[in-house]
Amino acid sequence: MNNPSTSGSNKTGAGNPSRARLRRDVQRPAEPGWRQEWHDIIFEADSHAGRWFDIALLIAILASITLVALETVPEYVAWKPRFEFFEQILAALFTAEYIMRLMTVRRPLKYAFSFWGIIDLLSFLPSYIIPLVGSSSSASFVTLRAIRLLRVFRVLKLWRMMDDADELASAVWRARNKIVVFLSVVLVAVTISGTLMYHIEHVEGADGFTSIPQAMYWAIVTMTTVGYGDIVPHTTLGKFISAALILLGYSLIIVPSTFVSAEIIQQTHAPDEPPCPHCEVSGQRSDATFCYRCGDRLHV
Amino acid sequence: MNNPSTSGSNKTGAGNPSRARLRRDVQRPAEPGWRQEWHDIIFEADSHAGRWFDIALLIAILASITLVALETVPEYVAWKPRFEFFEQILAALFTAEYIMRLMTVRRPLKYAFSFWGIIDLLSFLPSYIIPLVGSSSSASFVTLRAIRLLRVFRVLKLWRMMDDADELASAVWRARNKIVVFLSVVLVAVTISGTLMYHIEHVEGADGFTSIPQAMYWAIVTMTTVGYGDIVPHTTLGKFISAALILLGYSLIIVPSTFVSAEIIQQTHAPDEPPCPHCEVSGQRSDATFCYRCGDRLHV
Amino acid sequence: MNNPSTSGSNKTGAGNPSRARLRRDVQRPAEPGWRQEWHDIIFEADSHAGRWFDIALLIAILASITLVALETVPEYVAWKPRFEFFEQILAALFTAEYIMRLMTVRRPLKYAFSFWGIIDLLSFLPSYIIPLVGSSSSASFVTLRAIRLLRVFRVLKLWRMMDDADELASAVWRARNKIVVFLSVVLVAVTISGTLMYHIEHVEGADGFTSIPQAMYWAIVTMTTVGYGDIVPHTTLGKFISAALILLGYSLIIVPSTFVSAEIIQQTHAPDEPPCPHCEVSGQRSDATFCYRCGDRLHV
Amino acid sequence: MNNPSTSGSNKTGAGNPSRARLRRDVQRPAEPGWRQEWHDIIFEADSHAGRWFDIALLIAILASITLVALETVPEYVAWKPRFEFFEQILAALFTAEYIMRLMTVRRPLKYAFSFWGIIDLLSFLPSYIIPLVGSSSSASFVTLRAIRLLRVFRVLKLWRMMDDADELASAVWRARNKIVVFLSVVLVAVTISGTLMYHIEHVEGADGFTSIPQAMYWAIVTMTTVGYGDIVPHTTLGKFISAALILLGYSLIIVPSTFVSAEIIQQTHAPDEPPCPHCEVSGQRSDATFCYRCGDRLHV
Repeated sequence: MNNPSTSGSNKTGAGNPSRARLRRDVQRPAEPGWRQEWHDIIFEADSHAGRWFDIALLIAILASITLVALETVPEYVAWKPRFEFFEQILAALFTAEYIMRLMTVRRPLKYAFSFWGIIDLLSFLPSYIIPLVGSSSSASFVTLRAIRLLRVFRVLKLWRMMDDADELASAVWRARNKIVVFLSVVLVAVTISGTLMYHIEHVEGADGFTSIPQAMYWAIVTMTTVGYGDIVPHTTLGKFISAALILLGYSLIIVPSTFVSAEIIQQTHAPDEPPCPHCEVSGQRSDATFCYRCGDRLHV
Repeated sequence: MNNPSTSGSNKTGAGNPSRARLRRDVQRPAEPGWRQEWHDIIFEADSHAGRWFDIALLIAILASITLVALETVPEYVAWKPRFEFFEQILAALFTAEYIMRLMTVRRPLKYAFSFWGIIDLLSFLPSYIIPLVGSSSSASFVTLRAIRLLRVFRVLKLWRMMDDADELASAVWRARNKIVVFLSVVLVAVTISGTLMYHIEHVEGADGFTSIPQAMYWAIVTMTTVGYGDIVPHTTLGKFISAALILLGYSLIIVPSTFVSAEIIQQTHAPDEPPCPHCEVSGQRSDATFCYRCGDRLHV
Repeated sequence: MNNPSTSGSNKTGAGNPSRARLRRDVQRPAEPGWRQEWHDIIFEADSHAGRWFDIALLIAILASITLVALETVPEYVAWKPRFEFFEQILAALFTAEYIMRLMTVRRPLKYAFSFWGIIDLLSFLPSYIIPLVGSSSSASFVTLRAIRLLRVFRVLKLWRMMDDADELASAVWRARNKIVVFLSVVLVAVTISGTLMYHIEHVEGADGFTSIPQAMYWAIVTMTTVGYGDIVPHTTLGKFISAALILLGYSLIIVPSTFVSAEIIQQTHAPDEPPCPHCEVSGQRSDATFCYRCGDRLHV
Repeated sequence: MNNPSTSGSNKTGAGNPSRARLRRDVQRPAEPGWRQEWHDIIFEADSHAGRWFDIALLIAILASITLVALETVPEYVAWKPRFEFFEQILAALFTAEYIMRLMTVRRPLKYAFSFWGIIDLLSFLPSYIIPLVGSSSSASFVTLRAIRLLRVFRVLKLWRMMDDADELASAVWRARNKIVVFLSVVLVAVTISGTLMYHIEHVEGADGFTSIPQAMYWAIVTMTTVGYGDIVPHTTLGKFISAALILLGYSLIIVPSTFVSAEIIQQTHAPDEPPCPHCEVSGQRSDATFCYRCGDRLHV
């Protein structure tokens, strides 16, 4: 559409950030000073410093996730002390970041008990508790850090693709009713086909279809075309019905994507241009100078 | 499009329900009284009471399906008496519901022998017969209860997504000819590739391709990209032909979804323009000056 | 769009058949008589008799394919004499049909050496030769009979969905250049990723990636999301690269379907209506009576 | 749209080649003579000789890739001397081609250190070095030759489908922001679901989920519906969460294709109307009376 490198920075300077700032103004310190400046750096991504802060944070979170993930690999068990050393450093950084966030908001308690505040706290807290208790489940908090990634992706979004993320979200949102209808139909289809296959394959003493929930798991794995192969039909009748279910389920499960698709296509087609001021015909090209119908100048 | 919470309830009050009521009027008791009131509660979902009845029924059906499903899990075999106790309670509720339905329709026999009447009866009948006979196949009637789910989804549909379910159904319906053409081509492709692979892989004494129907089952599992892996080619030629078939079959099987997609997109492109004020025909072009049906000026 | 049962038979009486007849007129006997009548029954599907002939043939071909397929199932080995008996009857019927076809065309030799003539001959010939020679590969001719199915689907097509099959074929045809570009890119991607994975996984002495063609087979099975699981990466590096290739290949292989989709959507959007005779504006609705622009009557 | 055989050659003569020639003019020898003629044959595909040169090169590259691939197949180990003989011949041809390329460009050093120059050199160099050193990893250079395929596909592109490749590339390019958003979300989803499944399945002592990276590999293989089946959940909870993740991930991963799809559809909707006769701007509405750019009457 438009050149992202130039119009993107324009947007950052004028359009979206002001909107984003309005939303956050409640927590932004009122009087100018170092708290307001640091608040803008830590909580916003409009200025150069703010963007670099978010990029640094992004790298730190990715590094910490990689560390925790590698810690569980049996091959790297000898490296564990080194991993834990870096892990401590990163936890210290996240602690410093948390304290800075507390100090640069207008009402620290409101932040501390907000969704992001709790996520931020829980992302480094276990690093201090676990070595004391001796448990080894610190890895479970990698999930919380992955959620923090979503927060930092803000830097990318504001920069360039805010609108694209919005467009995706709104297309999914407008197709939500169809998705609910679809999930209901899938639920019924999985229940019926799972029960059916349980009776066909279980009666024959087959190994995979040990219970109805197991058969329903098979139905989901099959209908989404994942097809692990850990549970497969062994009887001729079971194979025949499976083949029919696959063709049916395949058609069934491919449908909802077209709804989202249709919403997106409709969205991009919606003519956003104002009509001709003379003959009031709409559907003008976005780069038109003259009306296609009466030939009159459009933007006077 | 429009706010579902407000326009949805408007619709419920004025548009669809009257249409739905017309369809059911034959069975609705003519004289006002408790039978008519209860009929509206049990068979309709327009009133608050009717909606809550359907939601309660929905939960009861889901609970009964969950119970029957869990009964088959080997781990929960000790819980069987408890499951059977709740099962008996749910069966009693379904019986009461069936009797209420019989009592609140104008012609009970017509209901009893209708499609939904038989489904309703069969969904609780086995709970009484099976304990007497001692058979353990009560689970097979979970399927019938799953079908009843579709009936109760009416409550959700009327509430919010009647139009979406209609839209999906009509898009599939208008694409039906293309789906038949497609299934014919798939049938021929599966037959040819199954026979071909049987000859290539069976001659070599391979394990999986024991017969042509087996090879056709493989062809369906492969072409839909499910790919269980229980039957795989072992010869070089078989693998080469498989790879070609996969690419071919993949293209083949992805096509029908685009037809449904195209129908939906065409449908959603129908503009939301207000109807002609004179003849009330909708579907006007967004830039129309005159009605396409009566020739009257649109925006006066 | 339009009611298939009425407009379909209208078409059969007026539109397509005449076109189809023109194409076949070369072989249709010139003088009226039993040969011309039988020719219309056997080669056409316009008349009632011709349609029923094609339906009977369709059933006979499906039965013969089912017979040959079941013959290969080990469980039904005892039924082989019965299968062979019915097989002989069907072969006799196909022979009679072939002779009838030879007798009712103007130039029998031209038919005998045409594509369909050879297919027709080969579909029953092996039934006579194989019992004499004693070979058991008669099953390989089931493929030829499956091809004959495509001929008989003509009856379905003429009846209802000629246009849909045409639409599908023409959408694929107009997207052919994009499909060639796509297949070239897939070929390069499969070669590069296959070679890469061979070097990573083969060096490590893994079992699956025994040669580059084997690794290319893996790449196709993986990229199309079939994922049999007979060949899987075992090294950490191999798994990492596999994951990247899957995401890449997935994006790559989903693209061509959108091209066919785009062609179909464009096709259904093409305004086929003539413009207004007064103001010459096009884009009229197909069911419009008055021009949407000037309000003039359209079809005078 | 248009007949590719006639309009394609028209384009070759007038439209694209001149643009392509402009881009390459820097390296084309200035004075007419054998160097300029050979440059056109080797580097261009506009003339007949140039096209045949590219087709011959295409065949030679495909043959060399096939040779190297077959060399790794254990069954063909006896044929190795023959393969190596042909391999030497092809290496000689590629060497000759490289020398010719060096001789027919204006500044040979600039070509030698360009991307394609290095690819061209590396595609035959190992054939000379490896027999001396005795290593057997010559096969790894098949990758470089596969990259060269992309260069030679130019001949096909110029001939017929330049525009289609451009259209595909530009659709992907315009959807890039959405693809980045999507990949970010996938990364977070894979991390969270991988960590989650590691904790559920690893605690139970299951075999497959040995580490978090392994579980993330499983998440990618599952969400893309590849579903190898080498790692599968074994606990009831793991299966339940897997089924939910599959449905979620399936929805997630099918979305980006619709973005590319929407871009392509929007692109193909740009009508094929003739440009304005006055200012020669194309992209006019099909029902326009006046040019949207200069306001001049269109159909005079």
